[in-house]
Amino acid sequence: MAGLRDDHQHNPKLEPAIIVIFGITGDLSKRYLLPSLYHLIKDGLLHEKTEIVGVTRGTLTAKELFDNVVLCGKDSTNVCDPEALKTMQGHTTMFQMDLTSSSDYASLHQKLDAIETANGVCMNRLYYLSIPPQVYMPVIRLLGEQGLNTSCQHGEAMTRLLVEKPFGFNLNSAEELIQETGEVFGEEQVYRIDHYLAKETVQNILTFRFQNPIFEALWSKQYIASISISAHEKIGIEGRATFYEPLGALRDFIQSHLLQVLAIVTMDKPDILDSQHIHTAKQQVMSRIEPVPADKVRERVLRGQYMGYRDEVGNAESVTETYAALTVYIDNQRWQGIPIRLSTGKALSERKTEVRVSFHGASGEPNNHLRFRIQPNEGIELDLLTKKPGFGDELQTTAMDFSYNHDFENHGHPDAYERVLVDAVRGDHTLFATSEEVLASWRVLQPVVEQWAKSSEDLVFYKPGATDVKAPSH
Amino acid sequence: MAGLRDDHQHNPKLEPAIIVIFGITGDLSKRYLLPSLYHLIKDGLLHEKTEIVGVTRGTLTAKELFDNVVLCGKDSTNVCDPEALKTMQGHTTMFQMDLTSSSDYASLHQKLDAIETANGVCMNRLYYLSIPPQVYMPVIRLLGEQGLNTSCQHGEAMTRLLVEKPFGFNLNSAEELIQETGEVFGEEQVYRIDHYLAKETVQNILTFRFQNPIFEALWSKQYIASISISAHEKIGIEGRATFYEPLGALRDFIQSHLLQVLAIVTMDKPDILDSQHIHTAKQQVMSRIEPVPADKVRERVLRGQYMGYRDEVGNAESVTETYAALTVYIDNQRWQGIPIRLSTGKALSERKTEVRVSFHGASGEPNNHLRFRIQPNEGIELDLLTKKPGFGDELQTTAMDFSYNHDFENHGHPDAYERVLVDAVRGDHTLFATSEEVLASWRVLQPVVEQWAKSSEDLVFYKPGATDVKAPSH
Repeated sequence: MAGLRDDHQHNPKLEPAIIVIFGITGDLSKRYLLPSLYHLIKDGLLHEKTEIVGVTRGTLTAKELFDNVVLCGKDSTNVCDPEALKTMQGHTTMFQMDLTSSSDYASLHQKLDAIETANGVCMNRLYYLSIPPQVYMPVIRLLGEQGLNTSCQHGEAMTRLLVEKPFGFNLNSAEELIQETGEVFGEEQVYRIDHYLAKETVQNILTFRFQNPIFEALWSKQYIASISISAHEKIGIEGRATFYEPLGALRDFIQSHLLQVLAIVTMDKPDILDSQHIHTAKQQVMSRIEPVPADKVRERVLRGQYMGYRDEVGNAESVTETYAALTVYIDNQRWQGIPIRLSTGKALSERKTEVRVSFHGASGEPNNHLRFRIQPNEGIELDLLTKKPGFGDELQTTAMDFSYNHDFENHGHPDAYERVLVDAVRGDHTLFATSEEVLASWRVLQPVVEQWAKSSEDLVFYKPGATDVKAPSH
Repeated sequence: MAGLRDDHQHNPKLEPAIIVIFGITGDLSKRYLLPSLYHLIKDGLLHEKTEIVGVTRGTLTAKELFDNVVLCGKDSTNVCDPEALKTMQGHTTMFQMDLTSSSDYASLHQKLDAIETANGVCMNRLYYLSIPPQVYMPVIRLLGEQGLNTSCQHGEAMTRLLVEKPFGFNLNSAEELIQETGEVFGEEQVYRIDHYLAKETVQNILTFRFQNPIFEALWSKQYIASISISAHEKIGIEGRATFYEPLGALRDFIQSHLLQVLAIVTMDKPDILDSQHIHTAKQQVMSRIEPVPADKVRERVLRGQYMGYRDEVGNAESVTETYAALTVYIDNQRWQGIPIRLSTGKALSERKTEVRVSFHGASGEPNNHLRFRIQPNEGIELDLLTKKPGFGDELQTTAMDFSYNHDFENHGHPDAYERVLVDAVRGDHTLFATSEEVLASWRVLQPVVEQWAKSSEDLVFYKPGATDVKAPSH
């Protein structure tokens, strides 16, 4: 894109690309995708030959689209840089099509070829599916049918498919989705977006563990008593009934984000810290997470629904869980017997996502906790016992802390969606879930899905604003 | 003392006491001892029946003494609390005596008995020797001769002797001093003051190590690559030529403070964290520090003298070292082969005392350092490698930190001298060096003292304000 700086400190050195956004007028696109693209453009991080193609069913023009989207909410000023805005609009074309029409895909193919001709270069092609998961497969099949799964050089690696969660609704549908997608796009072409993995703190778990030998030395059941990974939200479903009602907390957060974070926290150290070796290590540990035994679902898994949810979704009998918590165990030498608690919920008292690693205490209860704060106030802290100042020898808990806000305020760090986009454009798979990982996490949860389908009598109702959700005492 | 609160949060529950200060008009007394007593009184930490007896050769009155001393420099206002000041003056008596006169000690005995009669109670007696170390022995002998080594109940434990460093000038003189003192005062009566040990951060090393199992797990040569204990001062000898010239940095700092800190950093975990078990553990590790071999003194020990020192002390041939650094090794399972560097110096660029524990790195050089900052800005910090925020995977060093200034500003914590006084009054030996410890540290240094006496050609001269002192390259 003309006029963009190429000398950025963290220049990812991207190649020319066409980013095709299916569902460009949708909620996710407007809230995350387009603002992230705007910031990447403003910061000069995309190749100057980057084109955005907005696929839409209607007749919306690019100008109308940009008039209806808040691109600069992240800036303190809320005012867009006029140059960057002009550049972005100048490189965005809308493409009207019916997602079920073969011939429309043929036209799209011609459109992309024409863009390449105009730019005089073969370009990476990214298809970003910001559409309901139910239509993933038809779209993917038609992309394949019309040869949109290869680039102008017929090099597959240059053409990429980006999909959002959920990756299936249970083990079976995930297997089907993966198999059918695989008939059109090779594994190396598929980028399953988990923007949690792209957060600085989550990435930093890897650095923290593997670059600081003192922590890796402590990283086993010998020193660790328990691990907790929680993602609490204050907001409810915010009107997204259609999206949420068939999904629920287990599929929305635990299958994807939290089991992915768990893999990063518990995996063995890869020989090499590259995408391939990291994924191998993640897959290994995920394959050792015990599927929750059917007869332990009630004991180890808790689901809840906030009061008012049924009215909100207009379904008086909805049993969709807006809260889910489960305890899992990893069956390997390093983690045997250590409880790992995953929990997530909406309409809770606090917005807080964190990984808490609790170490065995000097006498009984753990006093040392290492916290990776994922949001808000991203950072890492370590709770230690220190001496209470004064004449006595009483103890107190003190946190050693560093937070991104304090320590990195002069650097700024990319938003998770920006990172995800940049990595997809440059073909770095590290932060995307592989098919194997998706299937492994479904294997862990499948007994829960099955037990829950049999009866919903264990569903707990909680008040919006609750601190946490507890199982009823019998 | 009348009117003092007895409900202080950290009330050490002290007993009635007479604090006899030998050399009350001296520098140390005016700078540390009297201001500390003032603060203890102001904070209501001493028993209301506490009397200060100021021993002096001259005719100075208590009023004259207080007119000439700055008691409240620690407070932001610099203004003394008039009530506390009145209380302190009202309980201070001057006692004029010749330190070499037997009969004057007999009078002192009568004086102390009279104070007890007036207070109607047996009182703890503390003799604080704030006098040149050369006169310790004559004073101690005369105190014994006149029965001042027992209390009015003839209970020895209630009568205590407080002495300041240096505890001898070499192994021989330390042995003599300890043996002769022992003929008058039992080991449990002797309090050898090392105000470094009373600093919050130094005490916190114990808490840190033994209450946080994650660090104790790492506390050995398996994870630790090296340890450095340094005490750098910006000031020179500040006119204290008579005190410093026969002493030097090795005796002044390393024999006492730094080897004591070393013992606390490296000792095994005592079964019980009380004075007796802590001293046993300290003595054990100190007995395993290898005395510097005579033929390694040049290699492992460095001494320096800042330029201008000779003029300052009026001795053109002085070879007293104002800087000393040595590397020692501990001959036990835990520490074998790990270099431990002790260094101290005056007239350096920065005032900084810290313990730095460096852990083996993931690849080569250590990246993880744990720092106990003793002064200034007391606190603990841990250097970690984290991911540099952004699109790359570059690393950066980040410090996780807690400092007393930030974390405890609302508590306040006692000055080291206050702590030392309180502990002596209540008979807690934990923070005082035992005879065994003093002898053990002299055993480590004796070969250095002997080698240095033979020739001073290794003395390095450095410019005041130097960052550090380096051995000349040959």
